[in-house]
Amino acid sequence: MKRILNTETIKCIGKSVIIKGWVDTVRAHGSIVFFDLRDRTGLLQAVAGGEIAKALKEEDVVELQGEIVERPEKMQNKDLLTGQVELQVKEIKVLSKAQELPFAIKEGMKLSLPVLLDFRPLTLRNEKIKAIFKIEEKAILAFRQTMEKLDFTEVQAPTIVPTATEGGSEVFKIDYYGKPAFLGQSPQLYKQIMVSVFERVYMLAHAYRAEPSVTTRHLSEYISLDAEMGFIESWEELMDTCEVMLKNVFSAIEKDCSKELELFEVSVPKIKKIPRLKLKKAQQIILERTKRDNTNEPDLSPEDEVEICKWSFETHKSELVFITHYPTKKRPFYTMPDKDNPEETLSFDVLYKGLEIITGGQRINDYEQLLSNVKKWGNDPSDFEIYLQAFKYGMPPEGGFALGAERIIKQLLNLENLREASLFPRDMSRIDKRLNV
Amino acid sequence: MKRILNTETIKCIGKSVIIKGWVDTVRAHGSIVFFDLRDRTGLLQAVAGGEIAKALKEEDVVELQGEIVERPEKMQNKDLLTGQVELQVKEIKVLSKAQELPFAIKEGMKLSLPVLLDFRPLTLRNEKIKAIFKIEEKAILAFRQTMEKLDFTEVQAPTIVPTATEGGSEVFKIDYYGKPAFLGQSPQLYKQIMVSVFERVYMLAHAYRAEPSVTTRHLSEYISLDAEMGFIESWEELMDTCEVMLKNVFSAIEKDCSKELELFEVSVPKIKKIPRLKLKKAQQIILERTKRDNTNEPDLSPEDEVEICKWSFETHKSELVFITHYPTKKRPFYTMPDKDNPEETLSFDVLYKGLEIITGGQRINDYEQLLSNVKKWGNDPSDFEIYLQAFKYGMPPEGGFALGAERIIKQLLNLENLREASLFPRDMSRIDKRLNV
Repeated sequence: MKRILNTETIKCIGKSVIIKGWVDTVRAHGSIVFFDLRDRTGLLQAVAGGEIAKALKEEDVVELQGEIVERPEKMQNKDLLTGQVELQVKEIKVLSKAQELPFAIKEGMKLSLPVLLDFRPLTLRNEKIKAIFKIEEKAILAFRQTMEKLDFTEVQAPTIVPTATEGGSEVFKIDYYGKPAFLGQSPQLYKQIMVSVFERVYMLAHAYRAEPSVTTRHLSEYISLDAEMGFIESWEELMDTCEVMLKNVFSAIEKDCSKELELFEVSVPKIKKIPRLKLKKAQQIILERTKRDNTNEPDLSPEDEVEICKWSFETHKSELVFITHYPTKKRPFYTMPDKDNPEETLSFDVLYKGLEIITGGQRINDYEQLLSNVKKWGNDPSDFEIYLQAFKYGMPPEGGFALGAERIIKQLLNLENLREASLFPRDMSRIDKRLNV
Repeated sequence: MKRILNTETIKCIGKSVIIKGWVDTVRAHGSIVFFDLRDRTGLLQAVAGGEIAKALKEEDVVELQGEIVERPEKMQNKDLLTGQVELQVKEIKVLSKAQELPFAIKEGMKLSLPVLLDFRPLTLRNEKIKAIFKIEEKAILAFRQTMEKLDFTEVQAPTIVPTATEGGSEVFKIDYYGKPAFLGQSPQLYKQIMVSVFERVYMLAHAYRAEPSVTTRHLSEYISLDAEMGFIESWEELMDTCEVMLKNVFSAIEKDCSKELELFEVSVPKIKKIPRLKLKKAQQIILERTKRDNTNEPDLSPEDEVEICKWSFETHKSELVFITHYPTKKRPFYTMPDKDNPEETLSFDVLYKGLEIITGGQRINDYEQLLSNVKKWGNDPSDFEIYLQAFKYGMPPEGGFALGAERIIKQLLNLENLREASLFPRDMSRIDKRLNV
């Protein structure tokens, strides 16, 4: 007899079956033991007697043979599989015995963050915590599907790089056969190169930032969903593409993860037109609303980001907002300046409920202009030789964007800390186990 | 008027269109210039006159406006778009001027490997070289689709790790906020942990090996297509799953990349049943065929791998072969020993035309046995705390495998060097540009 999954049992009433999984919760009633068995599809109630049954503990892995029966009408709960059918167990085979748990799995997100992460393999078994990653994978899948549909080609960028791509000191150094190398802060330069090969490219990349402080919104290693497109008519096309992608990502989550969303009591934002706002204008609005005068700052502070998203929701019913035209000085060397005002760039961020989830913009595609900027930003052109080649030999007008996978999920599910949206988060104080800092 | 793609022009005979792309080859005939325009869909012949046309050079990026006309019957070549229609150019806009090329793009794979890599952004524009990566992406997509169909969940494993996962010294060290950390040699431990969460998981992972020599079959950073499954009935199920996956990968390539395969004059292997052979038996066969007595070696040498694949093809019409039961001493600590002979493991490799492309096996899922092996292999259990937790609290019988993306493509296309199957290969002597070794 072959194992069937818990969700398949509903079609097997009166039949003898084998099911396998983890013992989820045990309720002993005298000589009879009731327990839920968890497999990858959900929970099924099992009823058993005997010594082996009595010895069952939570998280034991078992193989059960028995008969599927319908539960009495008055006890039925049509919303749950466990409320409709149960397994009358005939035989129990213990596949793996669990040691005593340090806490009940159902504690889940009530645990403190350090405990949540110290016991990651255990806490990930919690239904609600598991849901975070089901939703995240759905987002990744929908991102890929959107890009494929728009005729983008997937490419793979290396993560070991010869130089700090985005400048700055927040870069991890590697001992590369006795020579220095670095972990890429983004796949930026590689996706741009690949535009000259495939025109439109996308990828899932690991990006690394040696963030020297512990905040709730940064990770040392994160998932970046990157896209880059050539032959753009204007830089607005990039924002249009972002909108399409976000719309598809949220729709896919709504469609396929409704149960998971319910656990968090949230719904996805309905994307129509996301407001587009120059940074200067955003700062003006914030000044008017809060009397905080940050109009001379080159970026929005975290509290300003929250404020402008509030404004966006109040005035445009949009939890997301594009902030555009960041100052040239504060953006990387490859960012296209606005012809009408070269102090500002054709760049944008998408803020979602007060947090940047996407950054993007048009890039400089003229070789001489790019070379001059490499130098102006204090870099050695020989470190960018391969990158510059792509432009030296013909590069169309192009641009792109990067979506932080963990960030969009944190914001959608109202998670307190970005670490909760990473399976095995890395930060200054932790690589799986705590580091002594 | 909106740009149309080259492949769309066949439906636009007699119409005025805009097309965009790279100037591929220029043939001047007096005052008339013939050139092929390359976009992401292919080539289109363009005919133009005038000063701008005369000044066109290969790899210039242009926007062309003109009329699509059918070519004279006697000049038609139905196999090529350029043989059926052409663009009578009315207006040329140069979007990006290319500098003089160091070599013609069509040289492509005739260039020496160092030149091929020194000028990667240029050589990747070659049709045949580009085909390598179209096929590779198709393989990755088919891998993912197979796993989704088999109810595996995609997960993301971190690449910064606290300890050398597979043991050995071939690991890159990172300066992690002043403390040592490493680049993961594989996502092995994380995919195993995730079996206790989702039962069946897969991922595309970057894997890192500080391979201290330059060979044609190793990369310092490579793409590993990983899968891991719980509740296996037997370890043969892992090989069955490998077979299904390989079959799907090759079918997808055959179906969607026929033109690309033609460029390499190869066809995909037809996967039915891949022979399964114990290492000892393979060594015996090699001894009989070649008189090379390596029957006491713990592994096959490269020339033995070639020989056993020849045998497999001659006797089973299979270019692929499973080699099983590698010695316990030579496999990582987590490998399940064979109960019938604990000197041997329930492990396997898949060899394809003489090169290992997959490695896999059943893992030890009993906590005590695993803990004892961690120690026996000379590791400190506290370095594996998170990993061991997954087993301490109930882990089903499980196993998995990893497919090297570059390796399967190298073998399929008969590439001489694994580097040719990596967009930006990393090795001892190169990170984009050459390192001084």
